[in-house]
Amino acid sequence: MPYQHIVLAVDLTDYSIQVANKAAALCKSFGGSLTVIHVIESLNYAYGGDVPIDITDIQEQLETTAKERMSVLVDQLDIPVQDTIITQGGIESEIHRIAEENSSDLIVVGSHGRHGLALLLGSTANGVLHGAPCDVLAVRVHKS
Amino acid sequence: MPYQHIVLAVDLTDYSIQVANKAAALCKSFGGSLTVIHVIESLNYAYGGDVPIDITDIQEQLETTAKERMSVLVDQLDIPVQDTIITQGGIESEIHRIAEENSSDLIVVGSHGRHGLALLLGSTANGVLHGAPCDVLAVRVHKS
Repeated sequence: MPYQHIVLAVDLTDYSIQVANKAAALCKSFGGSLTVIHVIESLNYAYGGDVPIDITDIQEQLETTAKERMSVLVDQLDIPVQDTIITQGGIESEIHRIAEENSSDLIVVGSHGRHGLALLLGSTANGVLHGAPCDVLAVRVHKS
Repeated sequence: MPYQHIVLAVDLTDYSIQVANKAAALCKSFGGSLTVIHVIESLNYAYGGDVPIDITDIQEQLETTAKERMSVLVDQLDIPVQDTIITQGGIESEIHRIAEENSSDLIVVGSHGRHGLALLLGSTANGVLHGAPCDVLAVRVHKS
């Protein structure tokens, strides 16, 4: 079977369920395992390590919200998820690191194609593609 | 089944068989159809339509070589190919056009990841991702 260890990376927006359903369908077809990850881009990372205020509370809040949304997302899938991971750091580098540690053979990410948020989410998909340790599937999400 | 109409885009280098085998394995899993395309980047297109010499012979030669390589590639696959298409134009725009005309649900392309030809082939994969009418799978090829 082509893919046995799929890592699904989600931004936990409303679009994530479309991408997650596709990843779940692939897992079903291949009989493989699914790990779902969400990377909270650390503010330290985004601002070069030089944030002039204490951001511990904000980071904790972000993590609590992410955990809730992750739980809702995973509950909607019709397959069991092997693992969920919420981590902080650089989005692309964390996705690559986790894919490598899990010996993943496929990373699944969302992509907005030509529409609205293309610049934002398109570049994440591009970033994940660049330097990925394995194959990358960009699932085109549709505006509802 | 997640994908029924797969378009595989190949550059017909030695790496193409790795990408083609992955696409063929997906088709087998899903019971879908496979169309294999190769785009000869037209010299007119690459140089903005202003080529000062007659390039008809060169283009014909490129097409003959492409047909031979395509035939060798397709013969190596362990599934029947629905269609092979060799076309001239802009690489990304032709791939998108053919994917759209075939109502494809997945485009498969090769990607070199972090290695050697990353700049060249990585950017094709990125280019295909941007504005694709459907999902895009970038298969990481390995140097032999």
